[in-house]
Amino acid sequence: MTQDAPPPLRIGLAGLGTVGCGVVRLLAANAALVAARGGRPIVVTAVSARDRARPRGVDLAGVAWEANMTALAGRDDVDVVVELVGGAEGPARALADAGLALGKPLVTANKAMIAHHGVALAALAMASGAALRFEAAVAGGIPVIKGLREGAAANRISRISGILNGTCNYILSAMAASGADFASVLTDAQAKGYAEADPAFDIEGIDAAHKLAILAAVGFGTAIDFAAVETAGIGGVLAADIAEARGLGYVIRLVGIAEDGPDGLFQRVGPHLVPLTSPLAHVVGATNAVVIEGDFVGRLLFEGAGAGAGPTASAVVADLIDLARHGAGPDDHPFGVPAGALRTATPADAGGRRGRAYLRFLVADRTGVLAEITAAMRDAGVSIESLIQRGHEDLAESAEGPVLVAMVTHDGPEAAVRAAVARLAGSRALAVPPLIMPILAT
Amino acid sequence: MTQDAPPPLRIGLAGLGTVGCGVVRLLAANAALVAARGGRPIVVTAVSARDRARPRGVDLAGVAWEANMTALAGRDDVDVVVELVGGAEGPARALADAGLALGKPLVTANKAMIAHHGVALAALAMASGAALRFEAAVAGGIPVIKGLREGAAANRISRISGILNGTCNYILSAMAASGADFASVLTDAQAKGYAEADPAFDIEGIDAAHKLAILAAVGFGTAIDFAAVETAGIGGVLAADIAEARGLGYVIRLVGIAEDGPDGLFQRVGPHLVPLTSPLAHVVGATNAVVIEGDFVGRLLFEGAGAGAGPTASAVVADLIDLARHGAGPDDHPFGVPAGALRTATPADAGGRRGRAYLRFLVADRTGVLAEITAAMRDAGVSIESLIQRGHEDLAESAEGPVLVAMVTHDGPEAAVRAAVARLAGSRALAVPPLIMPILAT
Repeated sequence: MTQDAPPPLRIGLAGLGTVGCGVVRLLAANAALVAARGGRPIVVTAVSARDRARPRGVDLAGVAWEANMTALAGRDDVDVVVELVGGAEGPARALADAGLALGKPLVTANKAMIAHHGVALAALAMASGAALRFEAAVAGGIPVIKGLREGAAANRISRISGILNGTCNYILSAMAASGADFASVLTDAQAKGYAEADPAFDIEGIDAAHKLAILAAVGFGTAIDFAAVETAGIGGVLAADIAEARGLGYVIRLVGIAEDGPDGLFQRVGPHLVPLTSPLAHVVGATNAVVIEGDFVGRLLFEGAGAGAGPTASAVVADLIDLARHGAGPDDHPFGVPAGALRTATPADAGGRRGRAYLRFLVADRTGVLAEITAAMRDAGVSIESLIQRGHEDLAESAEGPVLVAMVTHDGPEAAVRAAVARLAGSRALAVPPLIMPILAT
Repeated sequence: MTQDAPPPLRIGLAGLGTVGCGVVRLLAANAALVAARGGRPIVVTAVSARDRARPRGVDLAGVAWEANMTALAGRDDVDVVVELVGGAEGPARALADAGLALGKPLVTANKAMIAHHGVALAALAMASGAALRFEAAVAGGIPVIKGLREGAAANRISRISGILNGTCNYILSAMAASGADFASVLTDAQAKGYAEADPAFDIEGIDAAHKLAILAAVGFGTAIDFAAVETAGIGGVLAADIAEARGLGYVIRLVGIAEDGPDGLFQRVGPHLVPLTSPLAHVVGATNAVVIEGDFVGRLLFEGAGAGAGPTASAVVADLIDLARHGAGPDDHPFGVPAGALRTATPADAGGRRGRAYLRFLVADRTGVLAEITAAMRDAGVSIESLIQRGHEDLAESAEGPVLVAMVTHDGPEAAVRAAVARLAGSRALAVPPLIMPILAT
């Protein structure tokens, strides 16, 4: 280096789990390349984590240990705070608030914190002239925040849809490949590290909903409204549903969809039937994919690893290189426009949406059940495109229990389907509440 | 607007063809949104094109007409030059040089000019402190330059591969769907506007090679070496090749591949057999797709419209929004690192590459031909995995002429396959030179 070499960008890193250690390893392995692209070296000068003693297999020689995580922000040897602790509140939030209040740029992978407090944090960042970046919070290594906020910036975005949770996609892919049931595949996924010991956040769709709410804000310029995301998980999907869907020409995927239209902002995460003509149908395993639809660019697809140490570290360090290159200007708004300019969108009424749906009932095998179901459909104005009833022999789950009735509706309002199902509530014919899955329009 | 509103970014636009008019339309249609995301309005203040009189259907009221295209750069009412004229030399180059020399940022969609002169232009831009941006030059509306230069900036990139020419992909997709021959599909594509009246640049792979050379420079930090791109077109692909490939589990695509390794920089554009497990196999029609492989992020896929007024305008205006937001800093290097820091890479010897290949011969239907071909393979050390000879009745092209012999080799050095084909040169058995297509490794 010459004497004119710019000073390094000094990182205070909070959290030394999988992703935190991934960032340390990446900055060591690709130090020269990162310095060349960022215009100056990027070095970790201080770290903080819950347990100092835990062996992590990364070299932290010469890096200061900060016992008080929040104090990381105030250190003179820290230019940028990198928050990889997780959780919408607690130490992560305290650190983010402290750093931004001091005008220190914040890079975070914390989807829960951004989904719940992103607008407040962006306002704080703007007030203090600090940058706030969260590429790693959505879809792991895929640069989709950048693709949406900058790459597609010239477009009015009409729809964002995607496979945003690798755990669910791994499970649904494995169920399809093996024919096994949800519970056994989940156990297997946990053993292989694709699912957490407590998988609720993933399989109930909450993790995907966090990411969808963030994408919607960036794409539509609306204030994040995580509470308005209609969220359903994949725990109710049977191997038999996957088989029926396949027979109809679909795969089942946990899909997040956000649409901005005259009826308001629609946000939904849940299992969908995805036609094989959709690029999302070909996304298998723990991969993530996001489709962005804009008025001039048409349809863009971004696909890649949605989680893991390497990909997530790649996204964190990409944000750091941007900061090293551009500095941390207050005009560089995390959601594309100033936090105060984000619109408060009215949530759209899902009942007013039109589409086709897959409905699956597990019913008692006795006379009149099919008549009861089809009458409810008719009385609610739901038109049935196809209907299949399977006998016991087709249902591994229930050799002597209920039988399966699956149907696909014609295009119609969702409210009608809900009304039909409501008419059947409490019916002695139904063994469990019916499963309704929308069919993704292409 | 308040009195504090920042001044607009004033554009001098050269070229009012499809893309130029698309930019004018986009800036009018999405003016408020572009101003919100860019932090200030972006307005076209002056234009220049060959023919002022030509009706274009865009509103240019209040926009100055500059008869001397190069003079556009020197105008006081132009902050940024947008070059949409095309061509590696001539008026486009003169304008680019003039603008950058004056320190005016340049946004261009001109792949030929960047592929031939990108490093010189980047050096000129750096010297004068101007920005140079060319997102629209590669893969139309897909923000892949940004995805590679910024989104994947933390990674050592090992390989970039993609479908970079929509015309070729449209033709190959249509040939597969209809079973028709290249010539008739090309005529149809020209009638539908998917192919130019003079299609040579597209179907001979030159357009894709321009884009590949640019991507390689951005991804690997190497000086652009367009001349080193091994380039083959799709004109020699028969409907029968597509059918044979399908039978083997492949589709045929014009693929560009760039690899940076210990043997040097490898760059190739040509028809490949793509396995159905590759995401590139599912890219149909005029769509483009690029796969980027990095050491931490793994494999990223970007897919979308590779051409057309709307998508290309989207990319041009995304560059303009970036300039409006960040200004045009000299540290914002078009190829990710300073032009002077781009390595001069040694071209890799393709003969040293290993892989599997598809070889197709059209041969005279007489005794001993198969023995001659297989002996040449044996003598060159090429191991044959499978071989098919089709009779006349299977070859619509040649009901009474030559018959088709197609084979797939085992994994081996490309040099051996070339040597085998060289042994057959001049053989009276061969009706035309054999077609060799690499099989894309996944």
